[in-house]
Amino acid sequence: MSKTLVLLSGGQDSTTCLFWAIKEFSSVEAISFDYGQRHHIELDSAKTIAKEAGVTQTVLPINTFNALGGNALTDQINVNNKMESNKLPNTFVPGRNLIFLSFAAAYAYQKEIRNLIAGMNQTDYSGYPDCRIESINAIQNAINLAMDYNITIHTPLMFKSKAEIWRLSHDIGCIDIVKKYSHSCYNGVKGGCNYCNACILREKGFKEFEKSFIP
Amino acid sequence: MSKTLVLLSGGQDSTTCLFWAIKEFSSVEAISFDYGQRHHIELDSAKTIAKEAGVTQTVLPINTFNALGGNALTDQINVNNKMESNKLPNTFVPGRNLIFLSFAAAYAYQKEIRNLIAGMNQTDYSGYPDCRIESINAIQNAINLAMDYNITIHTPLMFKSKAEIWRLSHDIGCIDIVKKYSHSCYNGVKGGCNYCNACILREKGFKEFEKSFIP
Repeated sequence: MSKTLVLLSGGQDSTTCLFWAIKEFSSVEAISFDYGQRHHIELDSAKTIAKEAGVTQTVLPINTFNALGGNALTDQINVNNKMESNKLPNTFVPGRNLIFLSFAAAYAYQKEIRNLIAGMNQTDYSGYPDCRIESINAIQNAINLAMDYNITIHTPLMFKSKAEIWRLSHDIGCIDIVKKYSHSCYNGVKGGCNYCNACILREKGFKEFEKSFIP
Repeated sequence: MSKTLVLLSGGQDSTTCLFWAIKEFSSVEAISFDYGQRHHIELDSAKTIAKEAGVTQTVLPINTFNALGGNALTDQINVNNKMESNKLPNTFVPGRNLIFLSFAAAYAYQKEIRNLIAGMNQTDYSGYPDCRIESINAIQNAINLAMDYNITIHTPLMFKSKAEIWRLSHDIGCIDIVKKYSHSCYNGVKGGCNYCNACILREKGFKEFEKSFIP
């Protein structure tokens, strides 16, 4: 009953979740998605991090988001931090977390895994509606009914700020791995472009963590 | 507000839904999924039917179900009608309708479409949990929260038997197209294998319809 599957993008949040899961559960594996993302380089990070953590990683392809297009992560549109007419940044991929969690659940169903761990958080985030707790709860309910199979989605970072996520990674002893290997930048620049929202939130959080931690 | 998107597999139910939608809504288009299904031939039917109906059809690829495998529709496993240990036939693809509706919603989001029409029904069906009204309602809720965009999923066939679905297609004047072009057989046999559940339910329903309609 304690088999768990971590959604591992290779970013700061999911990397922290992976090491959190290893502390909390007896059996952990990771799943990543090759969905034609602009920052495809994050998959190299995910692979390295899974290896460092000593867990099995499965990479599933999804060729549908590129076919849909219409956003800066899966289409030929430049990343910008402005709000679009829908009041979201143009890096919002409609349905992404819903579909990632659904495919992860389909994989879990086959392997008799009952726990999914995912790094969504609604405190310092980019405004994506699929990161909110209400959305995650609704997705869990939809999965459980549609598959007639009970799965719990754990989101240990949901109410943490980015600074608190850095603090958690320090406390559970994975901060060096997060700093060294995780990739957040939407533009796919190794080490960060320092421009996109993902880079800005990561760096801002780290500075706050340092300030609060070392007075 | 009356723009609609019909999930068109090319089978009896979705074909009937397409013509129902054309009667009920002013603007209709269709979406189909090329997901590596054993009965890939249904996509030829869907294309012909969309053309006959005079609606635009979009075909989205999904290469993930083949990668997941584990069932008779997207893996090298023979279709049988026995119940597996999970009390479902081996044609159950975990997450399929959840993911189809999510991708359809992502497409609808981009096109400012607020209505999805889908052919799921829970009366004469194969026992798939993602065809039940509870599942559809939960999926609608998950989509609306995860995308922060209100979409209504209409399932006009939900409580109809297969005989009643044949009757509906007669009443709205599409029965000849359903009979001539729609494809139901899981084994991909043109005209039906007469063995798989899809063939059996279709044929049984048609006989009941004929009997009730022509005394």
